[in-house]
Amino acid sequence: MLVDALQFVKPSRERFEEWHAAGINAIHATVAIWEDSTETMREVGRWQRLLAENADLLCEGRSADDIRRAKEQGRTAVVLGFQNSSPFEDDLDLVGAFHQAGVRIAQLTYNTQNSAGAGCWEGEDAGLSRTYGINLIREMNQVGMVVDISHCNERTSLEAIAASERPVAVTHANPRAFVGEDVELALRNKSDTVLKQTAESGGVVGLSMYPRIAPDGVGCTVDRFCDMVAYTVDLIGIEHVGLGSDYYAGHGDEELHWWRQGRWSRSPMVPISGPVEFPDWFAGGLGYTAVRERLLERGFTAAEVERISGGNWVDLFEDGFTAASPA
Amino acid sequence: MLVDALQFVKPSRERFEEWHAAGINAIHATVAIWEDSTETMREVGRWQRLLAENADLLCEGRSADDIRRAKEQGRTAVVLGFQNSSPFEDDLDLVGAFHQAGVRIAQLTYNTQNSAGAGCWEGEDAGLSRTYGINLIREMNQVGMVVDISHCNERTSLEAIAASERPVAVTHANPRAFVGEDVELALRNKSDTVLKQTAESGGVVGLSMYPRIAPDGVGCTVDRFCDMVAYTVDLIGIEHVGLGSDYYAGHGDEELHWWRQGRWSRSPMVPISGPVEFPDWFAGGLGYTAVRERLLERGFTAAEVERISGGNWVDLFEDGFTAASPA
Repeated sequence: MLVDALQFVKPSRERFEEWHAAGINAIHATVAIWEDSTETMREVGRWQRLLAENADLLCEGRSADDIRRAKEQGRTAVVLGFQNSSPFEDDLDLVGAFHQAGVRIAQLTYNTQNSAGAGCWEGEDAGLSRTYGINLIREMNQVGMVVDISHCNERTSLEAIAASERPVAVTHANPRAFVGEDVELALRNKSDTVLKQTAESGGVVGLSMYPRIAPDGVGCTVDRFCDMVAYTVDLIGIEHVGLGSDYYAGHGDEELHWWRQGRWSRSPMVPISGPVEFPDWFAGGLGYTAVRERLLERGFTAAEVERISGGNWVDLFEDGFTAASPA
Repeated sequence: MLVDALQFVKPSRERFEEWHAAGINAIHATVAIWEDSTETMREVGRWQRLLAENADLLCEGRSADDIRRAKEQGRTAVVLGFQNSSPFEDDLDLVGAFHQAGVRIAQLTYNTQNSAGAGCWEGEDAGLSRTYGINLIREMNQVGMVVDISHCNERTSLEAIAASERPVAVTHANPRAFVGEDVELALRNKSDTVLKQTAESGGVVGLSMYPRIAPDGVGCTVDRFCDMVAYTVDLIGIEHVGLGSDYYAGHGDEELHWWRQGRWSRSPMVPISGPVEFPDWFAGGLGYTAVRERLLERGFTAAEVERISGGNWVDLFEDGFTAASPA
């Protein structure tokens, strides 16, 4: 099983063929960053059309069964998700509506503060809001939408884990203690405390090859990445480690601009250079097949590699994508 | 000059006739609490239609000149404003667009946290966001929309005052130190620190007869209210005190429900009882004429009463409703 718990590629047949060739069984694909409900529904609709048009390569990833079936059929299941809660527009009913539309994972915040909590570009004072933030998590727990804290600041992350009655996901981030502060976006990585509590919630952490948060940045080798996998497994246990590349490709300058400042700023708020460069071995976002091989060489058992490369995500999605039982 | 710096009445001819009979020269009327841009534009449009249909009694309040002209003509100028920044949808361009549409005042937050800051129902940890919050204030300063901090929590209030290059308004709140904690919504009132810094910014504080934040609640007398005026004048100076009743009338249960929990909660988050009861002398929201008379009896000069009952607001609006000069 090979699951990449976050890619934000511009969808195209070329990409889907690459996934197929690399044997990727499921991708969590981003459909919203700052978008409101209408803008997001258009993007969901676009993906649904693309799934139908490319049904030889792709299928919907609405459940763990969908992903297992995709693997059997040699297709890639696409799990739709948000990197922000903006599409809900502070309307609890829209959580269930987007679940019905196929969305299964949502970050509470992108990099900034919103009505639910605060992202990693804010200070550490703001946390999960006592009002909407708590209610949003309760609603996501109820309908079966996984709470993703990847971009939340420390405090919001910890308060979200505490508030959620179901396991919480870090779909794409790295251990800050391992990677160090010497990467472009060190604040995007997670403290050992957040990683441990994510695991205690029953959640999974997707390790990322995004160079701005990866060890040694663009110089990160397969071995160095595997060192990080080993570190994280030692820290939180084999059942809680997965992969989540944060790979993106195909977007133009206008889209990068949108991700970095939405409509809420006239200029970039953090000094991020242009499009990111990934290391050669991660070309096309497909390097996790190499990671899987190297982990086996380094003595991880086949069962352990199976967990890390996708099994843990499928286990989390098994329950996490399903509505909670009535109390 | 008599200006009420916040009423949230359901607009109707009956109300406009009452304002006229009471000699109210300007009302700041709320057109958004949790509404998004489209919902708010509908409400703005409704008001514009009502202003045209009732032009014998009302006129637009887009400038201090509009208000002075309204007084000469025996009409009431209506200044449109928001009690939340939700209509902007985190889009800086919408600030200018709503200014063009006639909106002149906006609170950064209602009672909860949003992408700009935090309201008084949250804790004291969250403040003005370093990202959108700062940018929103800069944009409001630029286009000539007055920043209103009435419902913001302490920290957001102080950080907003510091961030704003133009005077900040507290359109409707009372001094917590005078009123005490023994009212239903004590957190809605302002510390002496916030009141002083509002004044230092060049801003004005509108004292409110809303019983949940007024001294002695529904038992507040005209004299007790005037005691509060005197306290506030002593604290921050005669040039910084005005009136802002927070009077509301004509709304049904569904609308009260909306104000209290929007779509972001399934149940009330704070224990507020049903519709509010105002003291008899404040019937129809018209009691500020009585306050004006009583202040004169108590020895305030005519010029001082003129400032408190409206002159200070008109002075603030004179500059505050106008676009900033290019740097």
